[in-house]
Amino acid sequence: MSSASPKPLLLDAARVAGLLERIAARIGARHVVTDTADLAPHLVEGRGLFRGTTPAMVEPSDTQEVAFIVAACAEAGVPVVPQGGNTGLVGGQMPFGGLLVSLRRLNRIRDLDPVDLTVVAEAGCTLHQVHEAATAAGCLFPLSIASEGSCQIGGNLSTNAGGTAVLRYGNMRELTFGLEVVLPDGRIWNGLSRLRKDNTGYALKDLFIGAEGTLGIITAAVLRLYPAPRSRATALIGLPDPHAALALFRRLRDVAGDALSGFEILPRFGMETVLKHMPGTVRALAGDHAWYVLAELSSTRRGDDLSELAVEVFAAAFEAGEIEDAVVAASEAQADGLWRLREALSDAQKFEGGSIKHDVSVPVSRVPDFIAEAARRCEAHLPGVRVCAFGHMGDGNIHFNLSQPVGMDKADYLARWEAFNRIVHDLVAGLGGSISAEHGIGLLKRDELPLYKDPVALQLMAAIKAAIDPAGIANPGKVLKRD
Amino acid sequence: MSSASPKPLLLDAARVAGLLERIAARIGARHVVTDTADLAPHLVEGRGLFRGTTPAMVEPSDTQEVAFIVAACAEAGVPVVPQGGNTGLVGGQMPFGGLLVSLRRLNRIRDLDPVDLTVVAEAGCTLHQVHEAATAAGCLFPLSIASEGSCQIGGNLSTNAGGTAVLRYGNMRELTFGLEVVLPDGRIWNGLSRLRKDNTGYALKDLFIGAEGTLGIITAAVLRLYPAPRSRATALIGLPDPHAALALFRRLRDVAGDALSGFEILPRFGMETVLKHMPGTVRALAGDHAWYVLAELSSTRRGDDLSELAVEVFAAAFEAGEIEDAVVAASEAQADGLWRLREALSDAQKFEGGSIKHDVSVPVSRVPDFIAEAARRCEAHLPGVRVCAFGHMGDGNIHFNLSQPVGMDKADYLARWEAFNRIVHDLVAGLGGSISAEHGIGLLKRDELPLYKDPVALQLMAAIKAAIDPAGIANPGKVLKRD
Repeated sequence: MSSASPKPLLLDAARVAGLLERIAARIGARHVVTDTADLAPHLVEGRGLFRGTTPAMVEPSDTQEVAFIVAACAEAGVPVVPQGGNTGLVGGQMPFGGLLVSLRRLNRIRDLDPVDLTVVAEAGCTLHQVHEAATAAGCLFPLSIASEGSCQIGGNLSTNAGGTAVLRYGNMRELTFGLEVVLPDGRIWNGLSRLRKDNTGYALKDLFIGAEGTLGIITAAVLRLYPAPRSRATALIGLPDPHAALALFRRLRDVAGDALSGFEILPRFGMETVLKHMPGTVRALAGDHAWYVLAELSSTRRGDDLSELAVEVFAAAFEAGEIEDAVVAASEAQADGLWRLREALSDAQKFEGGSIKHDVSVPVSRVPDFIAEAARRCEAHLPGVRVCAFGHMGDGNIHFNLSQPVGMDKADYLARWEAFNRIVHDLVAGLGGSISAEHGIGLLKRDELPLYKDPVALQLMAAIKAAIDPAGIANPGKVLKRD
Repeated sequence: MSSASPKPLLLDAARVAGLLERIAARIGARHVVTDTADLAPHLVEGRGLFRGTTPAMVEPSDTQEVAFIVAACAEAGVPVVPQGGNTGLVGGQMPFGGLLVSLRRLNRIRDLDPVDLTVVAEAGCTLHQVHEAATAAGCLFPLSIASEGSCQIGGNLSTNAGGTAVLRYGNMRELTFGLEVVLPDGRIWNGLSRLRKDNTGYALKDLFIGAEGTLGIITAAVLRLYPAPRSRATALIGLPDPHAALALFRRLRDVAGDALSGFEILPRFGMETVLKHMPGTVRALAGDHAWYVLAELSSTRRGDDLSELAVEVFAAAFEAGEIEDAVVAASEAQADGLWRLREALSDAQKFEGGSIKHDVSVPVSRVPDFIAEAARRCEAHLPGVRVCAFGHMGDGNIHFNLSQPVGMDKADYLARWEAFNRIVHDLVAGLGGSISAEHGIGLLKRDELPLYKDPVALQLMAAIKAAIDPAGIANPGKVLKRD
């Protein structure tokens, strides 16, 4: 496996005890959690790749309390590690000796304006909570990721979350107008701007988004809403290969324009894995297809008939021999059923043994070549490995996952993670791609990053980190190595 | 006037001579311009607010030459001031003793990909050149500003340019995937990523965009293209006041959705000034209206009839008593004629004497109240002042310009710039707005910024500047004061 939990920091016990006492006096002793059983779920992440350690988890209730905690930690020289819903996939939310700061009590929607199309949400709001608030006001908050029920806005911001709606609406950075941040020395930056245009200095908001807590703790944000779509057409298409999928993508983009709001791809192995293991999933196309595309059109325009438009496009694509079959959902329930086939895939893979995962991106035009060549190299490296390349093809973002050969020992298989990283990431780099399209760097890819990132970019990142967090207490050892 | 050219830096003459000799040996003596007449047009900006001084203007031909120049300047302790088309409105492109670096010879389109919808352009390409390249490939590069014939991509990036298409497509930052930058010590950061999704560290691209040359010199960028719109509907609407304009904006957004791609406002005084002074402009609405809106719908979708949609919306708005009259262009030529009424306004104002200008933004919902209250306060301060509040209402960005009272001495009038700044900017700040929506800070608003910007934000900016440009040679004294 490419990951190992780092040795925890050794801190002076008396110093830590004094710190916890100070914090307890300010936020209440019951919000300084030290009980092992209570801490346990916060010290292991979803895939079990890392196990954290911490003297305590503190639960501030507002920005001022976060600032107090961070200032106290800065004074005591104790690192702070923010944690949201603990759904991150690269270990960024795991503490290794530092104080764990839970944002869950900062969970207020401070404001929502349906004319300006903005919502001000605190970091501990779940994504689902923001979706609900937007929907209640006739609006859409577009960010759509599988963990929406438990992930929190602060984590979405810190990892610049992506997902299935990026194609049309952009990722978290593009969905954010302003931020409130507690800096590593406890100062509060109030950058809760609601403005569409503001050219008064450096792009601080963009810097903190995606910094994975290494530059401070985001406590609230002004998020961008959109009018809720009035119509939607969801379709599942069977086709021979990713080249055909690229042709279909271009055809849909050409005819439907901005209405194209989702374009996901999955292979036969992925589809069969979902249908085999995931309750409530139903085969939507009768025939057998090597590849599937889930496409969505949506529009806020009054009087649109997107299903008709979709059917027209698929008829033409069928005529041209690009696609083998297609079904357009006839109801919202059917549309949800089609989406479930795609969204259940990450969970379904767990039933097929060890899975070695890569979250990569290449220019959209290179996706078919990337998938073909990466599969060829991986199968040559380990005959029997089962390639499951799926994801956000419209963004060039492929989750290039590899399920173990049937019957192989899981641990033996996972021991090859490094070797597969080298194969997949070398190819990605050669195509001008990224080794982390949407999950971030955290700890999982920290030591991989210098192999592929421009060295000057890394030097700039280190200089910025040192300028904003000179004492190195903000989530140290994540993204960048400690000095 | 709120501006005064700072005292030029005093540099050791022998040191400068040695530096110019080194540079001439590398890039050719004819590209080290010292002739006073040749330099003159580069040392005064459009509004004549500042006059620059420089030992020479150097004209590198590629990124390596820019890096050589910057490294040599860093060694000699001589500041570098990049200049594009010299169309900036806040003095950011003016040197005050430092070396002027013209980017005009870096004017290659390195690549254009109509599938990935990207164009790689060097900093010295004019915006018009990029428009032409995009159009030739059946694509659109959406940035639309009045100076497109002469402004350059490097300047557009450094000022995070805005304009009339931001409503639909975003400003320059959102239109950029990657950058190539020469840092203040001569290192080259190659960040020419073409990726839609890339979460491998801090948002360096966003930091350099809008930094106005204070963190280095941008030499090339990967810009984002869109499919060219297939249909367009352009309309001019007469209405009683900005409240009615806001109602119309909401109505159009509701019915047309993403197709709403422009929403500009101008007052009767602005319209009459254009019709009086600007050749080739024609009155488009017969009646007399206190306010006008220029609205544009556009779409890439096949088979759209946006004129029909527009007429429907205006009929409903007329029925509701929100608008007084409307005309929808029946041809591209008519549409261009309507746009000219709006775009000629900045130039037309020059014929009405001194103009004191503010480029501000507030949340869209506050625009009507802002315009009314700012006009009231300014008219109370100086009876007879003629308010010309116009611009990008859909973005909340108003150019709140004030033409002098008829017959007043121009210099006496312009001496009130500071007083009007205080009136307008105080009001903007109270509404959560920005004192520079799209023009940037440069020198013009540098000393105004600390009055309104969060102090922690300014501290962060200073820390970042010190980290990336510790010697302080990158366009010093712009955006931030020198220490």
